[in-house]
Amino acid sequence: MSVTAPSGFRAAGVSAGIKADGERDVAIVINDGPSRSAAAVFTRNRVKAAPVLWSQQVVKGGRVRAVILNSGGANACTGAPGFQDTHATAERVADALQDSAGEIVVASTGLIGERLPMPELLSGVDAAVAAAARDGGLNAADAIRTTDTVAKIAFRRGPGYTIGGMAKGAGMLSPALATMLSVITTDAELTSEQCDRLLRAATSRTFERVDADGCLSTNDTVVLMAGGASGTAPDEAEFGALLTEVCDDLARQLIADAEGASKSIAVEVVGAASEDDALTVARAVARNNLFKCAMYGEDPNWGRVLGAVGTTDAEFDPARLNVAINGVWVCRQGAVGDDRAKVDLKPREVTVTVDLSAGSVAATVWTTDLTTEYVHENSAYST
Amino acid sequence: MSVTAPSGFRAAGVSAGIKADGERDVAIVINDGPSRSAAAVFTRNRVKAAPVLWSQQVVKGGRVRAVILNSGGANACTGAPGFQDTHATAERVADALQDSAGEIVVASTGLIGERLPMPELLSGVDAAVAAAARDGGLNAADAIRTTDTVAKIAFRRGPGYTIGGMAKGAGMLSPALATMLSVITTDAELTSEQCDRLLRAATSRTFERVDADGCLSTNDTVVLMAGGASGTAPDEAEFGALLTEVCDDLARQLIADAEGASKSIAVEVVGAASEDDALTVARAVARNNLFKCAMYGEDPNWGRVLGAVGTTDAEFDPARLNVAINGVWVCRQGAVGDDRAKVDLKPREVTVTVDLSAGSVAATVWTTDLTTEYVHENSAYST
Repeated sequence: MSVTAPSGFRAAGVSAGIKADGERDVAIVINDGPSRSAAAVFTRNRVKAAPVLWSQQVVKGGRVRAVILNSGGANACTGAPGFQDTHATAERVADALQDSAGEIVVASTGLIGERLPMPELLSGVDAAVAAAARDGGLNAADAIRTTDTVAKIAFRRGPGYTIGGMAKGAGMLSPALATMLSVITTDAELTSEQCDRLLRAATSRTFERVDADGCLSTNDTVVLMAGGASGTAPDEAEFGALLTEVCDDLARQLIADAEGASKSIAVEVVGAASEDDALTVARAVARNNLFKCAMYGEDPNWGRVLGAVGTTDAEFDPARLNVAINGVWVCRQGAVGDDRAKVDLKPREVTVTVDLSAGSVAATVWTTDLTTEYVHENSAYST
Repeated sequence: MSVTAPSGFRAAGVSAGIKADGERDVAIVINDGPSRSAAAVFTRNRVKAAPVLWSQQVVKGGRVRAVILNSGGANACTGAPGFQDTHATAERVADALQDSAGEIVVASTGLIGERLPMPELLSGVDAAVAAAARDGGLNAADAIRTTDTVAKIAFRRGPGYTIGGMAKGAGMLSPALATMLSVITTDAELTSEQCDRLLRAATSRTFERVDADGCLSTNDTVVLMAGGASGTAPDEAEFGALLTEVCDDLARQLIADAEGASKSIAVEVVGAASEDDALTVARAVARNNLFKCAMYGEDPNWGRVLGAVGTTDAEFDPARLNVAINGVWVCRQGAVGDDRAKVDLKPREVTVTVDLSAGSVAATVWTTDLTTEYVHENSAYST
């Protein structure tokens, strides 16, 4: 299924020799129209990889013919030569498709600070375009993996149209889009303005609420292409809900596969005075290393939750805070609550609920525990 | 030496049975005057332990007779009963000294969310007051250890006066004072206003620039007591410089002994447009888990440094950033610089220099690497 679930899209994932192990490393997703409406959201990191700088310009035009992606190298912090490499990649795709480079989005993922092996990449572009087919969605999702252990795909069917998507991302996961790449396709008829509005709304409640390690990448990119092949102009609210479901599905898959994680943790803040407050508190908890270590140790150490909440400027009274871990209210009114021995932290799925007692707004951020495996994996990544 | 290096101070550290292993767990530092000028700085965490809430009130009066400290329990998130425990502790000290509880600072460290064993603590208070002596400084420093592997003490002599200090803190180290307790004493003659001004200036450039794990504690307390026994009214600038040296010495000892750390890392930002910018960038790097894992792996992964810099709002142009690791400029003008193979990361001491090329201001934050030992230690702390 994946990005080729909607009609009018072809995709491929090929091995171009960028990755040393010979696994797939170049992916393409081609929109055969009739429409080329598109939008994208990018990392908020001010140090942006060359493909991000390029693709931001492309997307401003509101039209995208294809997205070319590579794993095995981020092409970040590579200066003007790196930007030229991205440009050359887009030109090669455009040549192969007899189209304009100005409508080709480029995305890269991998190690920062190294040039891409351009002969391999450009040959890979040719091979990917040649291989692109209606059944290529899964291979494309496979080709964008770095430390991901599984390919991440999702799709939803609406009345008369389909939305499909793929994503990658396992380390450096943080709000404002993790080190993640995602391509989402639909055969619904949408304008580029609709794409932009709907994509921003969906990502703000999904990908941007995933925070595995608080580290914001230089390459995050989420692209939505609407080809219109179904001939169906969707109800916008309904489409938005389905798009959010696809993004949510993919975001949860990212957390489930996060580097070295042994727990998938929902940090749920309730009783907040505002959504900003709820998110600020949820992120502070999700990023607290001591809390994350406690979760790894299956230790319901709610003091660390309160310690994290206290670092924020959200509206709350410390004496009215309540905390539940997997449904047991271990902290009531800022002090010891129910018996912490009742908390079962054995399952992989953990829910931590923080009740600010300051209003009626709720929000959830998804994170992981901090494990010795995470440290192992990330202390040996580039060498 | 420690807190009893200046004349006019007595101290003790005793075993009261709060810690299960029978180690020292109650410390007292008594100022025998003639003056009781004092000041303190406390955690900025809004979830404050009972002893912090108590001591903030005490210090408002500008006079402190003694500081009573315990390890083995933080008395944080313990509600009104916890506050009563702190009050009772101060009263017991006051009784033993035939003095006023309103001039007794209380500090606690240990696990959050549990009541202190009051019979043991109160007996410990009596024993500590009875044992307090001119040579008790080292025992006091020993008694405030939690996961600290060594006692931390420092002193400096000025013309006609002495400054002494002790500190504890190994985990939950972050700006705004880490989970750290520190008592600093001097026999110089100072007003409480001078104490306050000088202590804030010194801690802002020392303890507040230590950031081992970004986790802000509920209990951080640094107290300065000036007893005036030397009869010397110091030059304020000179005293301030020496006080800063004592704080810096203690702060470095905290980093050197941080939980599970294998590296002591100075994140030095130069070329900043302002001190705020320099500190913001230094903290962003110091808190970046991927960078910290790379340091543990002795991997000069400068891309992660740039990735962290890019998350800040400091003034800089990504194309003009330079990064050196242990003196090798591995990133120049935002791209690949000198050969990363030249970087020697084997020594414990590491210096990462970030040149923002945006001005002439510099600042340094001290941090540690993120290790499997840190995760081990912090995943098993409370159970």
